[in-house]
Amino acid sequence: MSDLEATRNWLDALKWADHGQIPAIAQDAASGHVPMFADMNRESLDETVDSGRAVYWSRSRQRPWRKGEESGDEQRVHSLRTDCDGDVLLLAIDQRGGSACHTGRESCFFHQLQGESWVLLDPVLRDPKDIYGK
Amino acid sequence: MSDLEATRNWLDALKWADHGQIPAIAQDAASGHVPMFADMNRESLDETVDSGRAVYWSRSRQRPWRKGEESGDEQRVHSLRTDCDGDVLLLAIDQRGGSACHTGRESCFFHQLQGESWVLLDPVLRDPKDIYGK
Repeated sequence: MSDLEATRNWLDALKWADHGQIPAIAQDAASGHVPMFADMNRESLDETVDSGRAVYWSRSRQRPWRKGEESGDEQRVHSLRTDCDGDVLLLAIDQRGGSACHTGRESCFFHQLQGESWVLLDPVLRDPKDIYGK
Repeated sequence: MSDLEATRNWLDALKWADHGQIPAIAQDAASGHVPMFADMNRESLDETVDSGRAVYWSRSRQRPWRKGEESGDEQRVHSLRTDCDGDVLLLAIDQRGGSACHTGRESCFFHQLQGESWVLLDPVLRDPKDIYGK
């Protein structure tokens, strides 16, 4: 039995960084694409698991960030994994609306290094005004 | 032109955390699986791009960690992306040997939450003694 399996409380089994957060990688369950990366804290992770909907922790706003709370574009969580060290999460998600990024792109990872420059690659699928104007 | 595109030096365009590191998500270029997550610093990222081989920064050993330096199982880097904030990297990689994890599994994310327990799921593909006994 691994240390992670042996720890009584699944939340205690994780390694929480200095400010009580753990980084979370969201991966689209169907396409395998990685649309975003954000932090969770104990409270938001617990709510994620209870509700089946991704809830991050917004460091800038210092409050839980229920993904889609403004846009309606929730992330439903299919499964949750952690790595050997228990210090990062990998979420298999289903992104409602198809775009995870506030710029209206599918993914926040829309800059690629080409030579010695970052190049903006992916198309805007939806006007941000349409996402947040609801 | 985005801020990332506009910054003259591509390394300066990134946001480096307190200790001069940036987290990096490795994603298999062919399967889309996410085998691991680790830190890079400026030096190791620069070497990654120059050499085409993933070089992380080992916090525990405080030195560059050339993935595969002991096992021979390098990660060849196909492409490198960053997100809107420039504070995390996404690497499309080709994992030599097929297992990224020191336990001999394809991925380090081999614990899944089931109910309120972490459950060890994925098979060991190679005996770690065979990987590190070289």
